[in-house]
Amino acid sequence: MPLLDVCFSPELIHLYDLKGRIVVVVDILRATSSMVTGLAHGLEKIVPVSNLDECKSYSQQGYLTAAERDGKMALDFDFGNSPFSYMADLVKNRTLAMTTTNGTRAIRLSAEADKVVVGAFLNLSSVAAYLQEQQKDVLIVCAGWKGKFNLEDTLFAGALAHKLQDSFESENDATLASWHLYETATNDLAGFLSKASHVQRLKNLDIHKDITFCLQQDVYDIVPIMEGDFLVPYIPEVIKN
Amino acid sequence: MPLLDVCFSPELIHLYDLKGRIVVVVDILRATSSMVTGLAHGLEKIVPVSNLDECKSYSQQGYLTAAERDGKMALDFDFGNSPFSYMADLVKNRTLAMTTTNGTRAIRLSAEADKVVVGAFLNLSSVAAYLQEQQKDVLIVCAGWKGKFNLEDTLFAGALAHKLQDSFESENDATLASWHLYETATNDLAGFLSKASHVQRLKNLDIHKDITFCLQQDVYDIVPIMEGDFLVPYIPEVIKN
Repeated sequence: MPLLDVCFSPELIHLYDLKGRIVVVVDILRATSSMVTGLAHGLEKIVPVSNLDECKSYSQQGYLTAAERDGKMALDFDFGNSPFSYMADLVKNRTLAMTTTNGTRAIRLSAEADKVVVGAFLNLSSVAAYLQEQQKDVLIVCAGWKGKFNLEDTLFAGALAHKLQDSFESENDATLASWHLYETATNDLAGFLSKASHVQRLKNLDIHKDITFCLQQDVYDIVPIMEGDFLVPYIPEVIKN
Repeated sequence: MPLLDVCFSPELIHLYDLKGRIVVVVDILRATSSMVTGLAHGLEKIVPVSNLDECKSYSQQGYLTAAERDGKMALDFDFGNSPFSYMADLVKNRTLAMTTTNGTRAIRLSAEADKVVVGAFLNLSSVAAYLQEQQKDVLIVCAGWKGKFNLEDTLFAGALAHKLQDSFESENDATLASWHLYETATNDLAGFLSKASHVQRLKNLDIHKDITFCLQQDVYDIVPIMEGDFLVPYIPEVIKN
């Protein structure tokens, strides 16, 4: 059976051998939720970039640009980090350059993996289907908050571990912790997360609607997969049928 | 109210400002459990050191020496990492130099804190009493396993968070996760941990007895506190009375 493991922070990623593995990067609030939403609504591809200047420079190539720092939209970009902004017609068949506080960094640090894909509650079952299709060892990389552990990404890891319980070996401490936390929280994810640090931070920014949206499961069927420099949408066979 | 936070790995410690804080280092299986046991049984003091050669050199000063690597006792030392070995008469009024895979490293990395103390289930209530006495911000540093998250240290963090719930502010994600995991596990810590990686590792070394011992609460009333280069025993006033 392939292995499933969870890395709670990009700061711990050097402790894992990524070669031969598929990495699932998760940043529920809100980078990976927004990426899934954008690609599901017709974005052709997304280039995750590290810093604001590099991101802005992509507008000269006709790309849309998105930037978030500390939960807020950075100045002079087309988008911030709200999934709702990616539902507009103007994203169709466009390319987006995106930089966020935690999520895009986690993607970049995972580059050595065989494949890097993007997960969110919004595409949970599709990510699970993709991993079952591939049958390789998996590492879920939680983007966290500025290197620290966070609850919402951990709950996603636990939800994915539940989905994969019969087809992946997951008896390591981080996966067990994620599993149990998801089991405790599953009947009321929003309630469970209401004390979480980043949820508090976002509440101060008045984006309750975003949080509710990002905690919905299986709204979209695409899995964003890194191909070269770009995230492109993929739909697993079993989900298509 | 002072703050309580949890750092899940020595690899994340640079993300926290230790100045003005008390750090509680925990390595349940078995470094901090053994330290507490030794000091409770009459060891005068313990010097935690980083590497095997340095540790061995202390024998020339008449110190006892203890060394563990990968769960096993290293060659040519007086002790390994089993708490039972520290119950012998020969430890009385002696000084011990000790190096372990994870625990002594976590202590060394915490040096910038106002105070560094050592916690285990064996002295849980005394650690809580000491922290209530001090009324400073607290960071629990889990030694983990070679930098990775582990369950047993996290459960200790959750147990301590429960003890301090009325006197410390603990609404950060790592403390909330520890809290919930402890709540899930509390009625059967050994059963909950039976799938944990390090417990599996130790089972292969046939030290079931050590694990059972280390999961007992409040066997000893001393708190090991770093004073200069040494851990020395302290008994909080409220525990004395």
